[in-house]
Amino acid sequence: MGLYTDLACEARELNPNIEGVSEEKEDYEDISITRIRIDSEQAANQLGKRLGSYVTLDAPRLIDRPLDLFESMSERLADELRRLMSGVSDEANVVIVGLGNRDVTPDSLGPRVAERIYVTRHVKQYIPEAFEYPIMSVASVAPGVLGSTGVETYELIKGMTDRIKPDIIIAIDSLASRRASRISTTIQLSDAGIDPGSGVGNIRVGLNRDSLEIPVIAIGVPMVVYASTITQDTISMIADETGLHGDEEKLKQLAAKVITEHMDGMVVTPKDIDSIIEDMSGIVAKGINKALFGEHFEDVHMLIA
Amino acid sequence: MGLYTDLACEARELNPNIEGVSEEKEDYEDISITRIRIDSEQAANQLGKRLGSYVTLDAPRLIDRPLDLFESMSERLADELRRLMSGVSDEANVVIVGLGNRDVTPDSLGPRVAERIYVTRHVKQYIPEAFEYPIMSVASVAPGVLGSTGVETYELIKGMTDRIKPDIIIAIDSLASRRASRISTTIQLSDAGIDPGSGVGNIRVGLNRDSLEIPVIAIGVPMVVYASTITQDTISMIADETGLHGDEEKLKQLAAKVITEHMDGMVVTPKDIDSIIEDMSGIVAKGINKALFGEHFEDVHMLIA
Amino acid sequence: MGLYTDLACEARELNPNIEGVSEEKEDYEDISITRIRIDSEQAANQLGKRLGSYVTLDAPRLIDRPLDLFESMSERLADELRRLMSGVSDEANVVIVGLGNRDVTPDSLGPRVAERIYVTRHVKQYIPEAFEYPIMSVASVAPGVLGSTGVETYELIKGMTDRIKPDIIIAIDSLASRRASRISTTIQLSDAGIDPGSGVGNIRVGLNRDSLEIPVIAIGVPMVVYASTITQDTISMIADETGLHGDEEKLKQLAAKVITEHMDGMVVTPKDIDSIIEDMSGIVAKGINKALFGEHFEDVHMLIA
Amino acid sequence: MGLYTDLACEARELNPNIEGVSEEKEDYEDISITRIRIDSEQAANQLGKRLGSYVTLDAPRLIDRPLDLFESMSERLADELRRLMSGVSDEANVVIVGLGNRDVTPDSLGPRVAERIYVTRHVKQYIPEAFEYPIMSVASVAPGVLGSTGVETYELIKGMTDRIKPDIIIAIDSLASRRASRISTTIQLSDAGIDPGSGVGNIRVGLNRDSLEIPVIAIGVPMVVYASTITQDTISMIADETGLHGDEEKLKQLAAKVITEHMDGMVVTPKDIDSIIEDMSGIVAKGINKALFGEHFEDVHMLIA
Repeated sequence: MGLYTDLACEARELNPNIEGVSEEKEDYEDISITRIRIDSEQAANQLGKRLGSYVTLDAPRLIDRPLDLFESMSERLADELRRLMSGVSDEANVVIVGLGNRDVTPDSLGPRVAERIYVTRHVKQYIPEAFEYPIMSVASVAPGVLGSTGVETYELIKGMTDRIKPDIIIAIDSLASRRASRISTTIQLSDAGIDPGSGVGNIRVGLNRDSLEIPVIAIGVPMVVYASTITQDTISMIADETGLHGDEEKLKQLAAKVITEHMDGMVVTPKDIDSIIEDMSGIVAKGINKALFGEHFEDVHMLIA
Repeated sequence: MGLYTDLACEARELNPNIEGVSEEKEDYEDISITRIRIDSEQAANQLGKRLGSYVTLDAPRLIDRPLDLFESMSERLADELRRLMSGVSDEANVVIVGLGNRDVTPDSLGPRVAERIYVTRHVKQYIPEAFEYPIMSVASVAPGVLGSTGVETYELIKGMTDRIKPDIIIAIDSLASRRASRISTTIQLSDAGIDPGSGVGNIRVGLNRDSLEIPVIAIGVPMVVYASTITQDTISMIADETGLHGDEEKLKQLAAKVITEHMDGMVVTPKDIDSIIEDMSGIVAKGINKALFGEHFEDVHMLIA
Repeated sequence: MGLYTDLACEARELNPNIEGVSEEKEDYEDISITRIRIDSEQAANQLGKRLGSYVTLDAPRLIDRPLDLFESMSERLADELRRLMSGVSDEANVVIVGLGNRDVTPDSLGPRVAERIYVTRHVKQYIPEAFEYPIMSVASVAPGVLGSTGVETYELIKGMTDRIKPDIIIAIDSLASRRASRISTTIQLSDAGIDPGSGVGNIRVGLNRDSLEIPVIAIGVPMVVYASTITQDTISMIADETGLHGDEEKLKQLAAKVITEHMDGMVVTPKDIDSIIEDMSGIVAKGINKALFGEHFEDVHMLIA
Repeated sequence: MGLYTDLACEARELNPNIEGVSEEKEDYEDISITRIRIDSEQAANQLGKRLGSYVTLDAPRLIDRPLDLFESMSERLADELRRLMSGVSDEANVVIVGLGNRDVTPDSLGPRVAERIYVTRHVKQYIPEAFEYPIMSVASVAPGVLGSTGVETYELIKGMTDRIKPDIIIAIDSLASRRASRISTTIQLSDAGIDPGSGVGNIRVGLNRDSLEIPVIAIGVPMVVYASTITQDTISMIADETGLHGDEEKLKQLAAKVITEHMDGMVVTPKDIDSIIEDMSGIVAKGINKALFGEHFEDVHMLIA
């Protein structure tokens, strides 16, 4: 668990020399974008991630919560999401799935985003003349609350997709990363879906193209760091700085001991996680709404919000 | 709408001389139980209710919220629920469906009950040895939050039942009645399921044995009276008392005018609806838990709650 | 109780021919403003209101919740509030008091407004250089939560004003009116403070210039109609329309009977009170923020919100 | 900050050989009680704590959340609280102050406890005959919500105590400790009040006998560990185990670097903090209610709760 991360870019930092992975980076004023593609099964196994594309948006200055950066971050997110959705019709049936538990603060990103999505499905169905242009049919569900009460999240989502047959799923979840500094500053998008054991709440069955038989795009924001990671990182750093590398085995045992005794089940979060998760939910929801409704964003906002 | 009620016993009071309806009444110290059976299609149409059994528990003294009556009310509810579930195996798969919107106070009964149900499904699946006796597999969902965001409640429930194939559904909903005095004092059970247009939140497609292909028991508690009902009742009463019956047509027009102008979309609730709904959720949830787990109620409570 | 209203304009409608009351009316496109002054003790007694100015903003079209009207309503509220605050220094110490109980929906206007006020008191105290212009020192409290737990709202507010010595109090509360149609469409301002027994939550000791020794401006929005009012109005209307006026005594007895038996403690609210109160809180908070910060509103918004 | 703790017993572990401190320990089946007295100003300065008594209840088995231990923990808490309150009349005026912010999970202990206290003040004032025996007059306030909006917590509490003149204050707050394992298992009581900079939310002016002119008993439960503490503890442990003590200065610099770069403002909490804080609030509230009402606890519970 000590080495675990939900971010492909961090998994790659831990395993830098793997074949079958391509990476490109783009830098803007306050945001840098990293696009990683995992193309071979072997690379996927080594990184502990599924085949597919992983895009990371990093904006360290977000830590000061400046309103203008909120705006450009949601703009970039919209761009990258549109890119991952290329080929999807502008009248597609889309279901947003907000994973996680509304009542557990760091796990509540998904439900918070889900409730801010502009839902057009009912309007298209019952008042089709309300839109004078082609527009996606968007629905939004937050099964986490339910999943915790005896029915697997996967069963609920699969039951729903079998009935209403959407063209694509966009799933939002809180992630675990290796660095506390990423908590308010990073967003990851991926067309590889969401795996069991990832996210803060940990689902049991994965949501992806194989299990749901439709494309699944995952959007995640790191909200916790497992405390065990910090202990381990501190120990690695000391090994580096003190030249104790001969004693590596001993240090590993030390780390294991501290983690087992003190850090089991503990997570690290910022003291102001409550306002951070509110801000990040706003950014992610706006990015998705912009990607889905494009030039009609303002119009739909007026009609629906 | 002025004559609308979700309670079979009130529908019958408004139409006392209908054939094809049987009724029996039982009186206990503080609780009286009325059991109505609608046996003919014609009676069903006249009453605006589906064929089936409707049981009403009335406890006027509940208005003072005495703890001992809470206890005996949940006990009676458990008895009546068990009776409606006769024939259901003691290892049945049960799904509790809490209808309504958690954020709209008088519509929040369903979700509040759903979250207090002892959910055994996961435990039976993953730690079957935890129970040394036959026990029902119980799951609990609150789709209302979801249903309001573009996917019909019916589609979600039908999708789920197609996947996990429960033997029976128990659906809980807030009801509208004709008398404000029923709000904290009445519970209705029925094997006829829940109809579109009933309840406070109003679903679009009914949940019943026909639509879901499994038995559906509905449990409801009146939480609002439509304000239009009050106006109409006041007018009827005046007609009675003043002997104005010759002018009936005029009074009807008067009522229609007041309702359209002033009462449209208004509901009547007690000032302390927030604590009432909390109490009633407790009573209903306890009654269901007792009915489902019988002699093992205490055991399951210790293990799950 | 049947004739009770928190609105001066309704009290006046019920008692049209009273001396010592002046009234002026101004009509704008979607908003009409009524300004009533109660100048004589006798008029005050007859109307059941304290001496002072009462301003009512009415915007019937608000019922459709159009965004542009939200904006102009908060603008008008700001104008009227500034007028009532004339003479207050632009560096005054202001305390906003949000009355009511956050957990009882129709009583939650005060706390909801209080949490949206731009609070500058701490900033002025600890980082005075943050503002390059004279600005009011604003604090915001919501004592209702507290008041309900054994300490009178008045004691808490009086204790606080004795310590921090504000120049003026602005108190916000949910009101009871006589017409359901006012619930989403009317705002009342007054320099007469708030009386015991008024509002939805009913305080025990009044908040006004006499009891707090500083000016108190009250801002209220009707959120409920007592159900007894409806019964009584229906009966009056029938008396008018049927020419039953000879029987007035009989009708009064009838009304009293219905009210006692059926309507005691009941209130009438719109089915969507939850979203209405959210909207009205936004309008009132924005109006207050605009009135307090004037031309620096945008600036303070960027800094504080 | 790395060495900071709100617990006197931890401060003492870090400074074991200080004069002017006495300590006694008592062990029960699942709970051990440590009573520390700080008697000299010098010891107080060295430990960073005020003069007074500090009682710690430790129950490591609480981590498994067994119901019977909840019961005996609240029983022990009641005993220790009564001991600290010896000399207080059984008709005393008591105010419970629940510090912290209801909306920030680890900081919400105070408000959650405050709302579960049996408030008798209003009943004693308005229906004195309701109690046939001498009983304390108890009120309960949660100023944190307010304090965050421009008025110091101290100003609100001081304003209130000046008005209603209680005999004693009992203040509840979330604490920071050095060990994650204490989060669900430790309660501290003290007659030294609450200091600025302590607790999770950090007040600016202390609440104690000096500042409020009445006795103040503080009850706290560790809810977070500052992440910097973990880094530092890991480093100390490595120094011990690897015999790197010659390099102490270097290790200190390392720790400072990690803390500044990665851990600033981060806290460590259990993943299930939401249910833990609910449980601990229940234990603390029950302990206080038992201490205040003694043999009349059940009676008051029936009347008030």
